[in-house]
Amino acid sequence: MKVQAAFAAAQHRPIEIAEFDLDGPRDGEVLVEIKAAGLCHSDMSFFDGSRNWHDYPIVLGHEGAGIVREVGPGVASLARGDHVILAGIPECGECPACRSSKTNLCDAYFKPTQRRPFSLHGRPARAFCELGTFANFVTVREWQAAKIRSDVPLDVICCLACAGATGIGSAIFTARMERGASAVVFGLGGIGLNVVEGARLAGASAIIGVDTNPEKEIAGRAIGLTHFLNPRTVPDVVETIRGITGGGADYAFECVGSSAILSQAVESTRIGWGTTVTIGILPGDERVDLRPRALQEGRRLMGSYLGNVKTRSELPLLVDWYAEGKLHLDALISHRIRLDRIADGFGMLSDGRARRVVIGFDEPPHP
Amino acid sequence: MKVQAAFAAAQHRPIEIAEFDLDGPRDGEVLVEIKAAGLCHSDMSFFDGSRNWHDYPIVLGHEGAGIVREVGPGVASLARGDHVILAGIPECGECPACRSSKTNLCDAYFKPTQRRPFSLHGRPARAFCELGTFANFVTVREWQAAKIRSDVPLDVICCLACAGATGIGSAIFTARMERGASAVVFGLGGIGLNVVEGARLAGASAIIGVDTNPEKEIAGRAIGLTHFLNPRTVPDVVETIRGITGGGADYAFECVGSSAILSQAVESTRIGWGTTVTIGILPGDERVDLRPRALQEGRRLMGSYLGNVKTRSELPLLVDWYAEGKLHLDALISHRIRLDRIADGFGMLSDGRARRVVIGFDEPPHP
Repeated sequence: MKVQAAFAAAQHRPIEIAEFDLDGPRDGEVLVEIKAAGLCHSDMSFFDGSRNWHDYPIVLGHEGAGIVREVGPGVASLARGDHVILAGIPECGECPACRSSKTNLCDAYFKPTQRRPFSLHGRPARAFCELGTFANFVTVREWQAAKIRSDVPLDVICCLACAGATGIGSAIFTARMERGASAVVFGLGGIGLNVVEGARLAGASAIIGVDTNPEKEIAGRAIGLTHFLNPRTVPDVVETIRGITGGGADYAFECVGSSAILSQAVESTRIGWGTTVTIGILPGDERVDLRPRALQEGRRLMGSYLGNVKTRSELPLLVDWYAEGKLHLDALISHRIRLDRIADGFGMLSDGRARRVVIGFDEPPHP
Repeated sequence: MKVQAAFAAAQHRPIEIAEFDLDGPRDGEVLVEIKAAGLCHSDMSFFDGSRNWHDYPIVLGHEGAGIVREVGPGVASLARGDHVILAGIPECGECPACRSSKTNLCDAYFKPTQRRPFSLHGRPARAFCELGTFANFVTVREWQAAKIRSDVPLDVICCLACAGATGIGSAIFTARMERGASAVVFGLGGIGLNVVEGARLAGASAIIGVDTNPEKEIAGRAIGLTHFLNPRTVPDVVETIRGITGGGADYAFECVGSSAILSQAVESTRIGWGTTVTIGILPGDERVDLRPRALQEGRRLMGSYLGNVKTRSELPLLVDWYAEGKLHLDALISHRIRLDRIADGFGMLSDGRARRVVIGFDEPPHP
């Protein structure tokens, strides 16, 4: 079938839109009509030069929600009409990782496929994260589609598939924060604000936000931040956090992607059990660089990928929390646009004007 | 009273023995007759130049076992005749750390005292870790003396107070290894061999030892090592570990004190949940230096201080395990000497001839 899709044509070339051909579902695959998709910095890395990718063109988009329109052979868990969230990490349900309660990193995620469901002028094209949600239809593996309730707006919950899961999950499934614990969140972007959501949901006694942009304070406090620190005006962030928490935060979350800030995060946690979750992606040349004694004093550091959320079995739980009014996702979405304005959307994301930008495929045309 | 004690007189001067005066127990203190004390590298740091210490003389020794001979005012939990292990970390029982199940790092450990129970020619002297177990009698705080059963040899279980707790505890109380998990131990010295003990006790399915000294293989296999790797002969230690464990060890323990080896340890663990416990003390100028993505793929890094063993409430448990035949501590002690040979003992420890050296205060004189 013919679909409209946004794709990267080269490492340094603006994102483009074209009509692609899309294969129907093969064994274990489903065809999904995308209703909404979230924009994320990692999509941008394919055309802003920051990622060394070799296999252009590639259809972008790895957060999305839609409705199953066709089911391939061997698909047992999904049916036509099901509402689904699509996620970058599969959940096969059978590998050691899927059978463990400790991780969401299904073994299948690390096995490269040669799937090229899209094609452009007859040339097969890859789909980012095996998805490519910046298209009005996609063909995906059943393992990457989580069936969800049908009474929630897809243009809100689509953001749970990546930023939402990463942030909320880091507090609840990675750190496993206990009720009454204190948390500090470094960087209040799309991920950091979702960490605040997760920490509040976990019952945190204090949630301290750290960001150089003073405007983040209002958005943060609206969803549960109890303290806000601007490193440009607070002389010693680590000491201030230790003071607020009486010795150090129980949990810290690094959502910036900076080795120096990761070290600050670790230092700001309490001796004995302070746990830092590293979420932000460090620039290519930066290493994790910590004072050894900070760790030896019983502190902990945890990596987190999509917030340890098992995509097919646990994303529906996050959707339930939203439906029950426990998550304030609406406030996180600042802009809704049509596919044809996707380049503007990435512009707003990269210069900080937007919190989250969502493409709605049913949106009316832009005037 | 007059006591014989080994002490450091200056940063670069061999350890010496002299007769000290020892104060009797004050409020909350007890007088303990030391029966056995273990030698440890951290004692050495006061006289081999590696530690920047300012307050000489200092009576050394921070692992010891003995019998309570006198009880000061306000001491409720100990009585004359009680057998005790003395430990460097107190357990006051009342601070947030003592009330938490997550840490053994009692707040009192971080509050410097001015206790100087020993004096030399009238000049009050500090005691290492507030203990100074290289003396035939010590006066210590009740908080640092764990009451134990009286049917175990003190010259064996004295080693549980530091190296034993650190190693065994790192596997059981810090990592909380599950039955059937795999472990890799980097460095099979006094700590590493105790980690092997702990991993075996936890029910590990595989315990891989890594050491450049091929002689460690025999000692290691005798207590539960299932594989031994010598980095001088195995070309790629990380890949070999991934091969043995089918993707990476569940747990890694760094017992050497090297930034490069800590990085290897992390890389050798499994994506998704691989947990590295950092035990070895890195040299002063080394930083924890890791590949960011190694952590982001769901790996974890934990600091451990005395193996998270709560000294007064959990050391007695380790003693019970020894009494029940579950721990092979005897095999770890290679040399028993008298106090007057302590300099030789440290010599054997530093050049690798000895596994653990214990001073026995009831030992017959050396011929």
